[in-house]
Amino acid sequence: MTIDLQASARHCGVDGASAAARRVIAALVRAGDISTADMTDIADRLNAVADDLEATAPPLGDRLVDMWQGDGNTRHDPATGPENPIAPPLEYEGTADGGISADVTLDLPYQGPPSSVHGGVSALMLDHTLGVANGWAGVSGMTAELTLRYHRLTPLFEPVTVSARQVSVDGRKIRTVGAIRHDGRDCVTAEGLFIAKYPPRPR
Amino acid sequence: MTIDLQASARHCGVDGASAAARRVIAALVRAGDISTADMTDIADRLNAVADDLEATAPPLGDRLVDMWQGDGNTRHDPATGPENPIAPPLEYEGTADGGISADVTLDLPYQGPPSSVHGGVSALMLDHTLGVANGWAGVSGMTAELTLRYHRLTPLFEPVTVSARQVSVDGRKIRTVGAIRHDGRDCVTAEGLFIAKYPPRPR
Repeated sequence: MTIDLQASARHCGVDGASAAARRVIAALVRAGDISTADMTDIADRLNAVADDLEATAPPLGDRLVDMWQGDGNTRHDPATGPENPIAPPLEYEGTADGGISADVTLDLPYQGPPSSVHGGVSALMLDHTLGVANGWAGVSGMTAELTLRYHRLTPLFEPVTVSARQVSVDGRKIRTVGAIRHDGRDCVTAEGLFIAKYPPRPR
Repeated sequence: MTIDLQASARHCGVDGASAAARRVIAALVRAGDISTADMTDIADRLNAVADDLEATAPPLGDRLVDMWQGDGNTRHDPATGPENPIAPPLEYEGTADGGISADVTLDLPYQGPPSSVHGGVSALMLDHTLGVANGWAGVSGMTAELTLRYHRLTPLFEPVTVSARQVSVDGRKIRTVGAIRHDGRDCVTAEGLFIAKYPPRPR
């Protein structure tokens, strides 16, 4: 069962453009300097796209108000945001233990050790997933402390599962755990302490 | 003094194209659905760039061998890699205490809380910086455990400093600390335990 845990991706508008930008990112890292592509031409075409987008950009203040409207699901964050080309993006489902889970296959832009996910990218995915698991459980907050343990390499090019669940709420202190697993084994585990407080939204 | 702590960015080749892709990423997140840009046209142009890059892509195995050649500085990682549009990219200098430091100003693609850096992006930058600090100190390894403490929000749109230094080596156990600071105050601090072992490089 797919549950509306994050903003749904659309196939048009900025989501479609961001999906295309994800293809460009992966293709550039794959190309490197051993590609025979004319990189000056590629750079010119990408700069022209950036020029056109910047020419019609909304004022930053307007965009900040716009992007923080709504129900708290963000369409723009760097882990799940369909509008953000940096986001893989993760797509969560609810799990039987009250937590959440996302299957994701990562490509070269997310590489740390050879053919493996960068430890910091694992940290990014887990920090975000623990935060969303808190919202899913009904009490969310800001990360105060996050501990990551790296048990084995997390592979690129194959599906891995990123999951999290809230384990306790004691006053304003929230404790949440998560893991990245491959083939049924823990690659990275995480424990987070969150504090139930919220920075103001732009308006 | 700028020291060759990571691969130097070039203004041509894939680095120039990746710099242009960074502009596209930032402009897309800035645009969102409130921009008046024709996003179908933008998507078509980006997909055409991806098509052209993919048509001349080297075989994955060749690229993996290529990207892991050399002195250990990676040109493609998601924190410092000039070839990777996801990387801000961080540019380090050596510091008087034997550590390393990078000043960086982050834009909307790296947002977590409103106008603030995503906690997971801070984790990504710190994990990578601690690892590079180990190499700089002469003994590097794989992250075994990383603890992040979030003291205050890290701002977007203003320079922040990401720093790290190795504090001890005991057999194969390496301990390293780091911080993200703004205006002289700690925003995020990190402690890492690394193990001196290395996965094989592709060949």
